[in-house]
Amino acid sequence: MIAVRALLFDTFGTVVDWRGGLISRLDEWGRSRGIAADWPKIVDAWRMAYPSSLRRVRTGERDWAVLDVLQRESLLKLALELGITQLDDPAVDEMVRMWHELPAWPDSVAGLHRLRTRYVIAPLSNGHVALLVRMAKTVGLPWDAIFGADVFRHYKPDPETYLGAAGLLGCQPHEVMLVASHPSDLDAAAKCGLRTCYVSRPLEYGAGRVIEATPEPRRFDLMVAGLDELASALAC
Amino acid sequence: MIAVRALLFDTFGTVVDWRGGLISRLDEWGRSRGIAADWPKIVDAWRMAYPSSLRRVRTGERDWAVLDVLQRESLLKLALELGITQLDDPAVDEMVRMWHELPAWPDSVAGLHRLRTRYVIAPLSNGHVALLVRMAKTVGLPWDAIFGADVFRHYKPDPETYLGAAGLLGCQPHEVMLVASHPSDLDAAAKCGLRTCYVSRPLEYGAGRVIEATPEPRRFDLMVAGLDELASALAC
Repeated sequence: MIAVRALLFDTFGTVVDWRGGLISRLDEWGRSRGIAADWPKIVDAWRMAYPSSLRRVRTGERDWAVLDVLQRESLLKLALELGITQLDDPAVDEMVRMWHELPAWPDSVAGLHRLRTRYVIAPLSNGHVALLVRMAKTVGLPWDAIFGADVFRHYKPDPETYLGAAGLLGCQPHEVMLVASHPSDLDAAAKCGLRTCYVSRPLEYGAGRVIEATPEPRRFDLMVAGLDELASALAC
Repeated sequence: MIAVRALLFDTFGTVVDWRGGLISRLDEWGRSRGIAADWPKIVDAWRMAYPSSLRRVRTGERDWAVLDVLQRESLLKLALELGITQLDDPAVDEMVRMWHELPAWPDSVAGLHRLRTRYVIAPLSNGHVALLVRMAKTVGLPWDAIFGADVFRHYKPDPETYLGAAGLLGCQPHEVMLVASHPSDLDAAAKCGLRTCYVSRPLEYGAGRVIEATPEPRRFDLMVAGLDELASALAC
């Protein structure tokens, strides 16, 4: 691992708890506005719409748009499907912005502080720069640089994202490690020549819900249970 | 000023002391390698080659290249002109890398820490991302994001840089202020609709040497003598 100079982090799920964070925010927010809804169901369905909305941009079926725009469209469609009629435009905007201020997993902030003493650390996210800056400032994520999808105008797993971030950091692909809780993201990074670290986040989709199976040993360069464990594995 | 949400900073001269930093590093480095040279003269001539090497990229006379490449070419040409024959390839590389680790002006780090409590702060530099990350980590500049010229593949004063950074921050141009010690940089930003803050750095080119005259009052939105004074002006 001595050749690795920079660590890139998937963000939603790997560094922050999007599901727990959104549900608790929406719960409180809905109560204050008199909007009753099955928030866990909405959050899960909203998240499930994410891959296909990114795919439409990646295939060129639609023009480039940042995540806020895609999340907004998904939510409006979902509200229609679920018969939720109380969401006016400002309410939808507020819900979309909740993705900017998600809580970190308990090990994330301390782990990143240790890791940045020896490595360049940056998010490589399908979120956009403005979203990631807002998240970093509210949660206290000590990034050295911010790589949102809008820097490359490509969404992961397009190779332009992994190779683009390595290039901007002045690194060869093998000098960069992607850290992510999603095997598909790591597989795409590995194809580009990056090193890979799988972080298990068993609560990402809710207790007991498994969306992607735990990868077999040795599929990735490292497998850890949190960013503090990664810091220890890298002697930080 | 209440509408400003983000502050962008020119870096060389505005945040860090390139001349004093380079001269003192070269002095020590030259002694340790037995290379005697008029370092102030070389540093000044090297810096003077900078605008024309950027202009060749900006006009399309040459393909895109990051600052390290341009600085290397300028230095080789200069060594030839000045008859300095002791600079082999590794020595030239070391000299180019000195631009990555320049000392901050005494008010910079403390001023930026205060400013980031209320604003998004980021460099907008003709340096590249890798250079700016290295500089931030060695000097302790607490940036929220890093905008190098390679993000836009344009050098200042091309409008793509000012408008590109504002766009990635999710801001309208008037919500962003450029902070710089160079009136020409600020004029170009103002043409794009950004707010402007002039920082006087009387020692940038060496004591008593004036390259650009102090701008007249009210040419820019703010005029300050340092980043601590800017923090006070913006009530941070």
